[in-house]
Amino acid sequence: MNRAPFENFLSEAIPERSSYEAPVTRAMRYSLLAGGKRIRPSLMVAAYRLFQDQEAEVYPYAAALEMIHTYSLIHDDLPAMDDDDLRRGRPSCHIAHGEANAILAGDGLLNQAMELVVSAGLNAKDPRQALRAAHSLFTAAGIQGMIGGQSADLLFEGKEAQEQDLIFIHQKKTAALIRTALEVGGILGGATEEECKTLKELGEVIGYAFQLQDDLLDVFATVEELGKPIGSDEKNGKLTFLKLYGVEQTRETIRELFLQADGLVSSFEKNEELQTIVNEILNRRS
Amino acid sequence: MNRAPFENFLSEAIPERSSYEAPVTRAMRYSLLAGGKRIRPSLMVAAYRLFQDQEAEVYPYAAALEMIHTYSLIHDDLPAMDDDDLRRGRPSCHIAHGEANAILAGDGLLNQAMELVVSAGLNAKDPRQALRAAHSLFTAAGIQGMIGGQSADLLFEGKEAQEQDLIFIHQKKTAALIRTALEVGGILGGATEEECKTLKELGEVIGYAFQLQDDLLDVFATVEELGKPIGSDEKNGKLTFLKLYGVEQTRETIRELFLQADGLVSSFEKNEELQTIVNEILNRRS
Repeated sequence: MNRAPFENFLSEAIPERSSYEAPVTRAMRYSLLAGGKRIRPSLMVAAYRLFQDQEAEVYPYAAALEMIHTYSLIHDDLPAMDDDDLRRGRPSCHIAHGEANAILAGDGLLNQAMELVVSAGLNAKDPRQALRAAHSLFTAAGIQGMIGGQSADLLFEGKEAQEQDLIFIHQKKTAALIRTALEVGGILGGATEEECKTLKELGEVIGYAFQLQDDLLDVFATVEELGKPIGSDEKNGKLTFLKLYGVEQTRETIRELFLQADGLVSSFEKNEELQTIVNEILNRRS
Repeated sequence: MNRAPFENFLSEAIPERSSYEAPVTRAMRYSLLAGGKRIRPSLMVAAYRLFQDQEAEVYPYAAALEMIHTYSLIHDDLPAMDDDDLRRGRPSCHIAHGEANAILAGDGLLNQAMELVVSAGLNAKDPRQALRAAHSLFTAAGIQGMIGGQSADLLFEGKEAQEQDLIFIHQKKTAALIRTALEVGGILGGATEEECKTLKELGEVIGYAFQLQDDLLDVFATVEELGKPIGSDEKNGKLTFLKLYGVEQTRETIRELFLQADGLVSSFEKNEELQTIVNEILNRRS
């Protein structure tokens, strides 16, 4: 993915406003344009580029996905939720802009995601394809996906979670958005049903590896590397895969997932860009 | 609108879930199925029935609009926002289900609104018409509409608002969803551009009258009639149209708006259902 034009697209999708809408718009831009890693948009674009040469057609969907991811972080950080003061190396949205603006900024980003996707559909050559992509995106973000995972997460606050609970929470809360990133890229690129299935499977594998790394980083990274408080799982008394499996087995599983991902990526031709991004994600230090 | 099948549709759109997603699903259903007046869905269906004989095609959009309205009430009632404990005659969502579940329930309803509309579009004979309807809906709900109005509302908390500020807040926060109710009904019904324009104008008029009534009811109704605390505008030190114009002029303006609405409705044939609903809204006591 070409980072500069995508960042530009994101910024233009939420223009600064001068008067009445300024406080919430500022809070939306503060969190969205805070220099995240753009992992999900990069995966979406790379999946699309397995089948197509350019990438701008995907930006509205990639931006929508990044908005969904960002809104979930803003609401997750609220005092009534995880109560985290630091995010992406800066004060959390509600610390910088107040709680009311942070709640509305989250709502605004989710709504803007929908506006972007609908506008893209109105301009699309194939509106049904656009609707299929939108369907994947919002199903992954909703009660059957990410929000369902957050619901489960709340359920086990202060209670003993088991391995199966952890797997559910992770699959919904983390993997769902990664899976849809790859699927939407495939749908828009014109992938066959079989190819979409492979992409979703790849999303599962990357999503799981991503979560295992998160658990490791929460223990072994520094605040500077991570841009958010470390040791928060321990502090919140949360069961993690790391606690369940130990450091060695966790690292071993990441290596296995890496090989699995490699096999899935290799089933596509023209896979250099996807290969590079998958490698970057699976070797990340923050 | 046939109330029973619509209520049934709403309930089936958010099925109860047994385990992990149960806490948030329960909170979503608690607020959505609390027996609201369904003013916006009724207006949408009535606008559609100016042009068509049945009504079930509109339900996904009408349900989505009611979900958007409901999520905005849940988030508005939160301690960091208006901090209201009572809604539709029952404890607010965050009082009954806790703040974290209330935040997620609001997010879940907005997301579910999108899922409904996108699914309807996938099944529609004319996907572009479906996308136009979705575009109206989510633009009205977003930063250019309802969320922009809420942003302005926050801006004037504890500050002196002027008449023009009040007009902006009202047009965005209240009228936008009423306007889109009528417009979406028209779009799906196959209204001409001119007819859609008339429907939007009607939405403005009804929206304004609705707000003036709200101001009056906040002072003159009882808690039992209203199902939420009375005198909250006074308590929150909010400027209202009522304070600005006084009781007599406010009542006179409502009468004038009533006549305007009547003129606009009369420009359509087959307008009995719309006429009835507009009358009900403009004569409401709660």
